[in-house]
Amino acid sequence: MKKYNFIKKQLSKTNKKNDENYVVSRIWHLLNNSDVKMITQQYIVRDVATKTYALADIYFPQINTIVEIDEPYHLSDEMVLSDTMRQHDIVQAIECEVFRIKVTNDLQEMNEKIDEIVLALRQQFDRIDYQVWDVEQEYNPMTYVQRGYLDATEHVAFKTVKDCCNCFGAGYKGLQGSGAKHKFQDAIDIKALKFYPNANWDNELSANEQYFTEYHTDAEVNASYMKKRLDELRQELALFAHVRSEFGGFEYVFKGWYKVNPKRSLELGKVCYDRISTTMPTYFASDQVAYVKVAKAIENNREIAFFYDKEELERFQERYKDADITYELMSNYS
Amino acid sequence: MKKYNFIKKQLSKTNKKNDENYVVSRIWHLLNNSDVKMITQQYIVRDVATKTYALADIYFPQINTIVEIDEPYHLSDEMVLSDTMRQHDIVQAIECEVFRIKVTNDLQEMNEKIDEIVLALRQQFDRIDYQVWDVEQEYNPMTYVQRGYLDATEHVAFKTVKDCCNCFGAGYKGLQGSGAKHKFQDAIDIKALKFYPNANWDNELSANEQYFTEYHTDAEVNASYMKKRLDELRQELALFAHVRSEFGGFEYVFKGWYKVNPKRSLELGKVCYDRISTTMPTYFASDQVAYVKVAKAIENNREIAFFYDKEELERFQERYKDADITYELMSNYS
Repeated sequence: MKKYNFIKKQLSKTNKKNDENYVVSRIWHLLNNSDVKMITQQYIVRDVATKTYALADIYFPQINTIVEIDEPYHLSDEMVLSDTMRQHDIVQAIECEVFRIKVTNDLQEMNEKIDEIVLALRQQFDRIDYQVWDVEQEYNPMTYVQRGYLDATEHVAFKTVKDCCNCFGAGYKGLQGSGAKHKFQDAIDIKALKFYPNANWDNELSANEQYFTEYHTDAEVNASYMKKRLDELRQELALFAHVRSEFGGFEYVFKGWYKVNPKRSLELGKVCYDRISTTMPTYFASDQVAYVKVAKAIENNREIAFFYDKEELERFQERYKDADITYELMSNYS
Repeated sequence: MKKYNFIKKQLSKTNKKNDENYVVSRIWHLLNNSDVKMITQQYIVRDVATKTYALADIYFPQINTIVEIDEPYHLSDEMVLSDTMRQHDIVQAIECEVFRIKVTNDLQEMNEKIDEIVLALRQQFDRIDYQVWDVEQEYNPMTYVQRGYLDATEHVAFKTVKDCCNCFGAGYKGLQGSGAKHKFQDAIDIKALKFYPNANWDNELSANEQYFTEYHTDAEVNASYMKKRLDELRQELALFAHVRSEFGGFEYVFKGWYKVNPKRSLELGKVCYDRISTTMPTYFASDQVAYVKVAKAIENNREIAFFYDKEELERFQERYKDADITYELMSNYS
């Protein structure tokens, strides 16, 4: 997987729309920074309440910013979630910064407008301490193990279920199936799910990703699975959604830490889970030499992140400054 | 006709080829100069002797330079002239400067290679006194009237036959038909021709544009037209080729000053013309206030260009320094 292939694909998605192609390619080339990740035609949630979605023309995940290209003949439509869309990862862009560019017919004017946006984007990238785009590192579970946690707000993706499990110290070389038990936490399963109709399963992830349901269209299978999940299986999940990858094929995006809600499951007639945290601590495998922790983040008596260095802890505290999180410093914190 | 529409179309022609789209858009945006004209997918003559042609990935007419993008899976093929190609203007690129860029898979490497070419192109534009790209002026016959001549090596195009005639002082407001008599030169007709099969005519322009033939597939019509052209009609032509325009539709490109070759016409059984000059002097209309000439260029006893200022004369002399041209300076030359 190469950055070049990724970006080439991003530019090519605008191919049929020449104005978009002009704007997107100019922004990319003038930004001229291969540490920047740019996604075009990204599905985003426009409004959680009305469950409306849209295709963002350009999305910069590192700075949570969208660029909308207003072509004279189309305003980007809001749409209701369709089955095709459900195969894609959908970004919670409610608090995104949005830049708009109106397409006109004048080259000089277009260039000036785009250049203004490029400048504004540059300033954003300069202002924050963003994670440099590194495709190899991005897809490597060890990146997150060494960091100490996974964060669902950061669109973390893996190529295989094995890699998802290895974030939690599974140490797998290969793995069949859609998940495994967490080796260090008895209450937790690691699970990859499809949130689009497949083989009689019709699972749904809510627009704000606060809850999801598992549902089998055969009533008998559904009832038997519900019983098993509610009574026998582990009640908590590290959830990964199976979504279309920008490199082609599919990948698994971390969605958070969820827990079965038995009451609501019985009401709905499908297994229902609530998100209990957007972050989860990662684990070194038992045969790896683990880093020495300097701190833990604790929310509702759950360890939601580990820290191996002070800077990472401070970045986390900055990001979650409004959340009710306790930080437990280790003796080697300095 | 707007520059933006033109360039947008140039970028869009590469749409199906993502590597090309990446390279072309990067070159355009980093060159970042709206005085520059860039054409993609331009038909060029590769070899006059073997009559082979090719599609140049990028062509910069102002500096007569081509950029070739060598994709791993295709080397730009040479091809024999087809009827579809004959509708396009074909550039004599034999003495073009050619830059090559090999497509690889690495973003950094690709960017570095493209940036090198952008730098080299910039240096070329800096070095020569190129004609700034001005779409309005480019298609306006008065531009060439005020300059004093048309030059077939410069790819001069007009939207209508009326505009072609007005380069020679016709002063038409409207015009039906494919040509007219030159109002100031008794031996010359102004003529727009299609060099692709149409309505039983099958005219051909040679690869090096040194000669062309007019031919009607009905033997009787052909014979009667030949007789008329050889015996009655004017023997010289200001030739314009009807070609596909980059703005959509068709336009008329100046190809030079041609003269009937009666001997060869009879041998071939089709009217054959030889080019006698790549440049022709332009004329103010009788109701226009003409500029005062400072010089004329004369080749084989023919006035091939007029000059209204010293700088234009010097530019012409620089361009045609190897040609056997006499310059006649007027008394007001200083």
